[in-house]
Amino acid sequence: MNKKINNVRTLVVEMVQKANSGHPGAPLGLAPFVYTLFKDYLNINPLDDTWVGRDIFILSNGHACGLQYVMNYLLGFNNIDDLKNFRQVNSYTPGHPERKSRGIETTTGPLGQGLANSVGFAISLKKLNLDNKVYCIFGDGCYMEGISQESFSIAANLNLNNITFIYDFNQITIDGPTSLSMNENVVMRFESLNYEVLEVDGENIEEIKKALDVKTEKIKMIILHTKIGRDSILEGKAKVHGSPIGEEGVKLLKQKYEIPLEDFYISDELVNDWREIKQNKIEKSKQMEIKIDVNEFDLNSLFVDDIFDNGTLATRKTFSMMLNKLKCKSKFICGSADLVGSCLNKFEDGTDFTCENRTGNYINFGIREHAMFGIMNGISGHGYFIPVFSTFLNFVTYGYPSVRLASLDKLNNIYVLTHDSIGLGEDGPTHQPIEVLATMRATPNLIVMRPCDIKECRGALSACLKLNGPKAVVLSRQKLPFIEYSCKDKCQLGAYYLIKHDSPDFILMGTGSEIELCIKIVNEFKDFNISVISFFSWEIFEMQPTEYKKSILIEEIPKISIEALTTFGWNKYSDYQIGLDRFGWSGKYTDVFDEAGFTPGKVMEKIKTFLKK
Amino acid sequence: MNKKINNVRTLVVEMVQKANSGHPGAPLGLAPFVYTLFKDYLNINPLDDTWVGRDIFILSNGHACGLQYVMNYLLGFNNIDDLKNFRQVNSYTPGHPERKSRGIETTTGPLGQGLANSVGFAISLKKLNLDNKVYCIFGDGCYMEGISQESFSIAANLNLNNITFIYDFNQITIDGPTSLSMNENVVMRFESLNYEVLEVDGENIEEIKKALDVKTEKIKMIILHTKIGRDSILEGKAKVHGSPIGEEGVKLLKQKYEIPLEDFYISDELVNDWREIKQNKIEKSKQMEIKIDVNEFDLNSLFVDDIFDNGTLATRKTFSMMLNKLKCKSKFICGSADLVGSCLNKFEDGTDFTCENRTGNYINFGIREHAMFGIMNGISGHGYFIPVFSTFLNFVTYGYPSVRLASLDKLNNIYVLTHDSIGLGEDGPTHQPIEVLATMRATPNLIVMRPCDIKECRGALSACLKLNGPKAVVLSRQKLPFIEYSCKDKCQLGAYYLIKHDSPDFILMGTGSEIELCIKIVNEFKDFNISVISFFSWEIFEMQPTEYKKSILIEEIPKISIEALTTFGWNKYSDYQIGLDRFGWSGKYTDVFDEAGFTPGKVMEKIKTFLKK
Repeated sequence: MNKKINNVRTLVVEMVQKANSGHPGAPLGLAPFVYTLFKDYLNINPLDDTWVGRDIFILSNGHACGLQYVMNYLLGFNNIDDLKNFRQVNSYTPGHPERKSRGIETTTGPLGQGLANSVGFAISLKKLNLDNKVYCIFGDGCYMEGISQESFSIAANLNLNNITFIYDFNQITIDGPTSLSMNENVVMRFESLNYEVLEVDGENIEEIKKALDVKTEKIKMIILHTKIGRDSILEGKAKVHGSPIGEEGVKLLKQKYEIPLEDFYISDELVNDWREIKQNKIEKSKQMEIKIDVNEFDLNSLFVDDIFDNGTLATRKTFSMMLNKLKCKSKFICGSADLVGSCLNKFEDGTDFTCENRTGNYINFGIREHAMFGIMNGISGHGYFIPVFSTFLNFVTYGYPSVRLASLDKLNNIYVLTHDSIGLGEDGPTHQPIEVLATMRATPNLIVMRPCDIKECRGALSACLKLNGPKAVVLSRQKLPFIEYSCKDKCQLGAYYLIKHDSPDFILMGTGSEIELCIKIVNEFKDFNISVISFFSWEIFEMQPTEYKKSILIEEIPKISIEALTTFGWNKYSDYQIGLDRFGWSGKYTDVFDEAGFTPGKVMEKIKTFLKK
Repeated sequence: MNKKINNVRTLVVEMVQKANSGHPGAPLGLAPFVYTLFKDYLNINPLDDTWVGRDIFILSNGHACGLQYVMNYLLGFNNIDDLKNFRQVNSYTPGHPERKSRGIETTTGPLGQGLANSVGFAISLKKLNLDNKVYCIFGDGCYMEGISQESFSIAANLNLNNITFIYDFNQITIDGPTSLSMNENVVMRFESLNYEVLEVDGENIEEIKKALDVKTEKIKMIILHTKIGRDSILEGKAKVHGSPIGEEGVKLLKQKYEIPLEDFYISDELVNDWREIKQNKIEKSKQMEIKIDVNEFDLNSLFVDDIFDNGTLATRKTFSMMLNKLKCKSKFICGSADLVGSCLNKFEDGTDFTCENRTGNYINFGIREHAMFGIMNGISGHGYFIPVFSTFLNFVTYGYPSVRLASLDKLNNIYVLTHDSIGLGEDGPTHQPIEVLATMRATPNLIVMRPCDIKECRGALSACLKLNGPKAVVLSRQKLPFIEYSCKDKCQLGAYYLIKHDSPDFILMGTGSEIELCIKIVNEFKDFNISVISFFSWEIFEMQPTEYKKSILIEEIPKISIEALTTFGWNKYSDYQIGLDRFGWSGKYTDVFDEAGFTPGKVMEKIKTFLKK
């Protein structure tokens, strides 16, 4: 028995016990592996957790974070109070690892996400031509999630052999043994992906080292045989996954390990050892030669050239034209879930990032939205590239949990989301977003923009380059006219007047493709005085001073919103909402708009009825 | 060359050509298989597409529906005008198959969904002890999606050997050859799941029949080697996936097949053959012995007993108590994505549905939310059982695309969604829903309920039994007090007054766990006259007559909503919103509520400031 590793184990169970909440099971099983990895393998600079030369460690089964926090304590990223404040409000040791904490690469917990993130980090490292490794631990829960299976496939296709996956194969999930829900041959599963599969006893340090030392040109998959809750009174029990082992359990574990009962006891040997290990890591990182100039990848200097075209063009097309005018294309990685021909977010001179071509700047994700968005978080999380990934707006739903985490971590992702309403037409209600835009707007920190023409597309790209956090650019499938009154600079205000009457009868507010409709109404119904607002981005609008907001949302004037999606949420800005609170239809988009009542005449009928009230 | 099959092919390309939109590629490759399956294997009653004795056919690659529509035409489910109205508004032949159309079991199109549905149908058939088969065709796109991988695993674990999967292995996706994004050994992949894997030439009728005839105790996976756009000018090209082949292309194809150029030509042989096939199928279905009494599974007679407990209990617990009082448990199938111990939706006397026990009424889905919700749609789609499946509210996001389709199809699903706010506590912001409730409410047809105590849980279950369409019951992790003023019957009004003052200073409206907070405010701030509304369900409220709605939302009185989630959407009902428009914190739930300002004092401070304005 390794007393130092056991001391790490007792620290974890004490953290959980003190919080009276947490997950002791996986840490007790994983401790020998993680200790060995951190001690003898992981290149990191304990003085700088963003050091470019570092290896990447990701705990996809984030609930095991107690173990990671203790290792980060030994490295100096956490102090002892952090351990004692485990799972307390505003601590650096929350219930699942969050990127805000030192030594944590990415927020994990929702299962499978870390695994996708690790693929993103691996891509970023390959792109940078750095030899650093990515180590990603995951559990049975992660394995079962679809996002993981998608990620494994993508990693295989790109042969990201800088990744070592470690499967914490304890065969217990929350509800019981994995046999309740899984009986597949996991070795064969990974062999079908052409991985280098190694089975290792999680308690055997020599076997662990041997496996980590194996040289291979393939992706490494270490299937680590562990026991959940090892050595504790709940060893092998599902309960130990997510429940403290009790005061008595802690005591018995300490007695078994011959570790003093004193609270949060840490042996001098452990402290002294890690003082030395830390120093060695610092020295090593100083000596390590970094092959790249980090400043080259400074993401603060991003520019886009102007372009002008007053033709009738879909905004997916005009945004694509803008992307191609980026002056700093080398800082971007594009990708799509098999819809690049529709979403148009590959640079004209872009090349595919593949096994053979690590300089490529476009990734074919196949039809795997969830992994794509999870990988995106790894790429942006690494901090050297901005991912610009695309799908149809409706299929954000397939990968939304990763969008949510990007929002939590304020990652600089750019989502190119096309076919953004019933204007998608013939593919029908299964493909037409109705509620999806509301979902995006309801997500904290996510900046959503729906430009109406080429100028606003330019405004959208400028905002993408300027604002921190994830940005979603929502674009039309159908062609739209050039809007005379739109303005790229005013997009930075979130909402602005396209047409402003001195004494309007009412104000129309729309976004994207519905601006055309607003303008048509103004032109067709000249007996009304109508002002028109382009409500380009709710989130950017909310960033403006109160005075500006009031100047837009003039209190006394009836305000009417039009958007060819759900009205949900619009009550915040408008007095009357025109939208679609049902699913759409398969048909020519002009027919669909007509059926849904999005024609000047039909809209005006509704407005007149509303104004009468 | 089989002229009848080729005639089916020309009909499909003509449909696509007439619509000038659609997917000819997959149908051209799949025609021989599908024709053979429909002709010689599929037990169906052309007079009744809901006949209990039918085999189930599901096209998971729903974009290939042109082919299914032609087969349904030959069976009499469609007429020739349906084919000519392909992809037109309100036709029965929309761009992707919809359950509303005759002969369509389930709405597909979003990739992988049909595959999950097929697992649900297979479970329902096994539960009914019927021997009918499920045939599910899927393509490369479906294969890549995580939901499919999850579904394959679940099907394997349950050994649902009444399913025959057919993999349309044409190795082309929208953006090009599958090699761009996939290089795994699919045969080995399915062997790792212990499937019976058969490789078949998609043009060889004998091979097709041989494969369909293979008897096995395993799940059958036919890997069908096909060529996308077969025989057309775009054969083998990615473009033919989703583009018409052109007038000239149609002409050339017809000439190649020696089929007259006349529009929508259908040979007499084809018509006559299918008149006979249809008749035979009708006869056969008459003679087939159905082992079950369908009336037993009439879902219109569902009842729940009452129960009373005025203790302090989490609503996840009180809803569980209600579920156990169902008088008709045999009509329900419960299941969870590895969270039954937290979500509590297994009946006390429930048994697991497994390979060995087909009478079980609880399914262990493992950590596979997306497949679980997709399978749910298959079970409810079959029409004999009501699925009651659970996870944390936040993890609905992992399976939301299936929830969306359930809403489109108005399926009778019951979602049990617990840990419904920051009240989840220590697991932190990765697990605390903020925007998820808004997403659910923004989804058309989905009925969302957030009960505050045991009586409202009873009201929620009554609504589940009474209302058509999917229902989400959103429940607390934390314990909540018994609410003196709540009423199970009034839940059927969506919103109602718990406390009604004659001349209130303001109205508080809350849901679920925040009702406790509202009542506390009333009790602590007696110098204010406060009315309190329980806003149990927005959707049910919207079903009420205008007069009732007006009587609740009294115009002149300031209305303030409180919900420990995003305020997004609440502007519709309240003048001032108290909520949380950011991500939460990991900590004791009482600390988290305090940090977020959900205490009587902090809320009242905000209200006073608002009222001053």
